[in-house]
Amino acid sequence: MRDPKDGGASRRGFLAAALGVAGAAGAGGGAAADPSRGPAPGPRGPAFYGRHQAGITAPIQRHAYFAALDVTAEDRASLLTLFTRWTEAGAVLADGRPLPDPASDLLAVPADTGETVGLAHSAVLLTFGFGPGLFLKAGVDRFGLARHRPEALADLPRFVGDQLVPERTGGDLCILAEGDDPQATFHAVRQLARLADGVARIRWVQAGFTPGYDPRVTPRNLMGFKDGTMNPAPEDRAAMDRHVWVGEEGGAWMRGGSYLVVRPIRIALEHWDRMKLGFQEQTVGRRKASGAPLGADREDAPLPLSATNADGEFVIPENAHVRLAAPETNDGAQILRRSYSYDNGVGFVAERWPPWRQGMEFDAGLLFMCYQRDPRTGFSKLFDKMAKFDMMNQFVTHVGGGVFACPPGAEPGRPIAEALMAAA
Amino acid sequence: MRDPKDGGASRRGFLAAALGVAGAAGAGGGAAADPSRGPAPGPRGPAFYGRHQAGITAPIQRHAYFAALDVTAEDRASLLTLFTRWTEAGAVLADGRPLPDPASDLLAVPADTGETVGLAHSAVLLTFGFGPGLFLKAGVDRFGLARHRPEALADLPRFVGDQLVPERTGGDLCILAEGDDPQATFHAVRQLARLADGVARIRWVQAGFTPGYDPRVTPRNLMGFKDGTMNPAPEDRAAMDRHVWVGEEGGAWMRGGSYLVVRPIRIALEHWDRMKLGFQEQTVGRRKASGAPLGADREDAPLPLSATNADGEFVIPENAHVRLAAPETNDGAQILRRSYSYDNGVGFVAERWPPWRQGMEFDAGLLFMCYQRDPRTGFSKLFDKMAKFDMMNQFVTHVGGGVFACPPGAEPGRPIAEALMAAA
Repeated sequence: MRDPKDGGASRRGFLAAALGVAGAAGAGGGAAADPSRGPAPGPRGPAFYGRHQAGITAPIQRHAYFAALDVTAEDRASLLTLFTRWTEAGAVLADGRPLPDPASDLLAVPADTGETVGLAHSAVLLTFGFGPGLFLKAGVDRFGLARHRPEALADLPRFVGDQLVPERTGGDLCILAEGDDPQATFHAVRQLARLADGVARIRWVQAGFTPGYDPRVTPRNLMGFKDGTMNPAPEDRAAMDRHVWVGEEGGAWMRGGSYLVVRPIRIALEHWDRMKLGFQEQTVGRRKASGAPLGADREDAPLPLSATNADGEFVIPENAHVRLAAPETNDGAQILRRSYSYDNGVGFVAERWPPWRQGMEFDAGLLFMCYQRDPRTGFSKLFDKMAKFDMMNQFVTHVGGGVFACPPGAEPGRPIAEALMAAA
Repeated sequence: MRDPKDGGASRRGFLAAALGVAGAAGAGGGAAADPSRGPAPGPRGPAFYGRHQAGITAPIQRHAYFAALDVTAEDRASLLTLFTRWTEAGAVLADGRPLPDPASDLLAVPADTGETVGLAHSAVLLTFGFGPGLFLKAGVDRFGLARHRPEALADLPRFVGDQLVPERTGGDLCILAEGDDPQATFHAVRQLARLADGVARIRWVQAGFTPGYDPRVTPRNLMGFKDGTMNPAPEDRAAMDRHVWVGEEGGAWMRGGSYLVVRPIRIALEHWDRMKLGFQEQTVGRRKASGAPLGADREDAPLPLSATNADGEFVIPENAHVRLAAPETNDGAQILRRSYSYDNGVGFVAERWPPWRQGMEFDAGLLFMCYQRDPRTGFSKLFDKMAKFDMMNQFVTHVGGGVFACPPGAEPGRPIAEALMAAA
């Protein structure tokens, strides 16, 4: 619960920002921490400009707001104007400031909607991405960009068990805002959506959160298990270059970028919560209390994938979640997970398992997000097998999603997609 | 954004709890602070037991999870069992602990779903309430409680402009969980809903949040205005006794309780955001930047309700929000507001105003909640006039809600509704 000390921390953050101390910490510091558990780089920072978009490897935040937009304009000039506006506004919002108003003109519509004025932890990480529809939509090359579509930006295949609904799927553009305060992440997307008026409109959004665990502890997800143990470390530059950052193989405009796969995954919590502890642990492949792999005694122990019990069966079952997700069973394939829990309240659900209960159930789960150098050898490779065999599929359903090319970072005066738009 | 200092604060909270320091701060301390801005009473606290339910006057929190449930059982014994379970579990959850498991039995369903194990700020405020349907539903007195229904627990009248939808309206019971961490508030409701299995089921829920403003600053709502200036002070015991706590007039079982009115209020943000600054300020009756009433120069200045301009018009317009809500224009009527912002993503909306735009719009706004001694002289009195005349009605729509009798606090060994169930 709220605590007098929090006020002190907020005040420090607020003062640091007011005094411009923020500028001392930047994208570089952010990239040196493990997004799944590391502490953040500094008090707050305008980590917007840089070689990479900062949100990809910065420490994961408390709140996220993802928005996918459809482009409604049909001309290149509008699109370029939008990217320029988004870049300029993005730098301001990333720094936790409201969009500047020329003056408090009573007869003008305010440039900023105002809900973060004076708010301490209002800095956000902003990541922009382009969906396949920006390049080719219903066979039409609206913006002359089709020949610059990277092969890696293929539409995701249909996976076994997919129950994607249109109102949570796709998008020509995406914005991911992440930060400490849900009012700040919402505010950022709201301002950027306003700046897109007449050019693009929101198709779907999903807010997410992470629990406030001590950064040295692996956080628990809504299934009650520790989650995030297996991410590659962002400070391992070789691993990042191999698994996350696009290299020479992409179009020049994507060099230093990455591909984002987003999948809202509904978890049938009511069903999961009726399972016995042992079954839950077999499903995940780890102990619930300690997070240790089955057959090991420490959370950070390597997965004993070949260990067998007295009956000759694998201690970590063949179809346990951790086995199917492990790099060892996927030719070394890795993705940089960056997931948030989501909670959309309750809705009417007819269960697809015994006892076939119908009623109001939580629409909650995981806003699964991951970055990778190529979704075909990243998410799609990993998930194709998991979609078929993962024991956890009894409890989870992919209900939407999208794939987005996240270009390299912007530079002052050079908007986020400059290289793409210049190439086209 | 996340900050290394936060880890320190979390650790302190965690250690305090582990060492049992928590018990030192209780409901009394919580009641001594202004919920709209005051700092919290102590590091965290099992403020569950006490004369009043602690969540009514404790400082407002960062996150809330409201759930309304329908009772499906038809016998008194089940209901009493539920209240006993909820009280015992409530004391544990309020203290930030998971529900105790007898043992880590692999063949047992875990008592707690586990997602707050080891989580620092997992303490929650829990408030329980009873809707009209508990006493009489479709003319049936299911539990022999009809004669104990207080007159004050009348169904709310239909107000001008109400667009209540069934899936966000009503409920025989309610639970409000409030705390620092969205995973903890969700967790609390999830456990209590599990304990209600076979007796009651969730009808609707709404999560909410507040922005992390310095406690000495009035926070801004999603309309960008400072909000919360006009609440009576919880430390003013006379005001609380007059406006919030039920006295001799209720049934004995409600003495020391209060009535909760809940109204999810959708704000047409896209519409509001297109309005000029001056019009926004006329609508609210305050300056947007400073929060000062129109015609005054400081946020805490009294409303100059009779001040007129050179044309003889009121400086604070006749139908400005602050004028209509002010105690001075409502025979001194006051309610204890305890509202959170909500954000349910986007949905398809056909606007009911020019330019009659249709499309995906935010389903966001205010989870308006208020406590009062009698809703007929509290919310209903205030809102009846506002529903008719408030300029803000162009932008806000009440889309659901309910009214609940929140009994006095429980005592160890005496469940939350003991007096009611004993009287019946």
